Amino acid sequence: MENSLDKAISLIRDVRNYPKEGIIFKDITPVLQDHEAFSMVIDSMAAKLKHMDFDYIAGIEARGFIIGSALAYKTGKGFIPIRKKGKLPYVTISKEYALEYGNATIEMHADAIRKGESVIIADDLLATGGTANAASELVTEAGGIVRCMMFMIELEFLKGREQLSSNEIISLLKY
Amino acid sequence: MENSLDKAISLIRDVRNYPKEGIIFKDITPVLQDHEAFSMVIDSMAAKLKHMDFDYIAGIEARGFIIGSALAYKTGKGFIPIRKKGKLPYVTISKEYALEYGNATIEMHADAIRKGESVIIADDLLATGGTANAASELVTEAGGIVRCMMFMIELEFLKGREQLSSNEIISLLKY
Repeated sequence: MENSLDKAISLIRDVRNYPKEGIIFKDITPVLQDHEAFSMVIDSMAAKLKHMDFDYIAGIEARGFIIGSALAYKTGKGFIPIRKKGKLPYVTISKEYALEYGNATIEMHADAIRKGESVIIADDLLATGGTANAASELVTEAGGIVRCMMFMIELEFLKGREQLSSNEIISLLKY
Repeated sequence: MENSLDKAISLIRDVRNYPKEGIIFKDITPVLQDHEAFSMVIDSMAAKLKHMDFDYIAGIEARGFIIGSALAYKTGKGFIPIRKKGKLPYVTISKEYALEYGNATIEMHADAIRKGESVIIADDLLATGGTANAASELVTEAGGIVRCMMFMIELEFLKGREQLSSNEIISLLKY
């Protein structure tokens, strides 16, 4: 099991100067493409949720859909999409949050969660934590409980973990 | 099995006048949220691929990521994201296609597929077929073979099927 996870780690590709000059982007697409590595990543993330009681995986658009959907399927839970503004068709609640320059807004369907239901928020990468925190606030506002936040990759030097209100933050790989 | 799929169908929500006046949008989020219905949809789609030989599921951003990722996990294959312009970090190939008003462009990583590898293109909905056809052209241009195109929902009255070059088009639910 460790060997396959090592393989997955080795497939993560550094792309320099994306999305802008000076940034080294962690490209997970070679991991997703490799069926063994992809399965291992999802299985390893699911294993970390094994003793946790929860109702849904909420994935953050767009790479969080890839991680979150497979994870929801594997754990036998429902999947909730958290999307960029204007992309959900029904009645939504929304949360604006600060980016490095300007603001962004994410939305969730207002009826996605019933009061007291519990949610794992999933995304591919924890960087500064702004989006994940906004997602957490959405779930709470809808009456849900954020049981845990789960990431495939955590960029520890950005200290996103310190910005998150959730008690439990789990990442598969740390840089 | 049929009963659970009937349940999934019953959960699809008609949203009137989205994304614009006069359109009735098929909202699949209540299906995704329901763990039984979500599992049943993925299992039913996977069952239709059972005797098919293929290497990857390619999902079209963004709802195609949700369907495609779980389907790739279930079938034990790799997942390839086909994304909107500018969203993939590495070297891409791209395809422009016509929308009702104006054009759109989708992209795939140039190294996603090796020559001769075979791909299932997955999306939530087949409408006019423009996006799916562009995705198919991308896979072919990269040297891949489109084995089949697979949709959760097909809007038959839009005749998208007639626009698609793939020999095999499979949809789970037809309207």
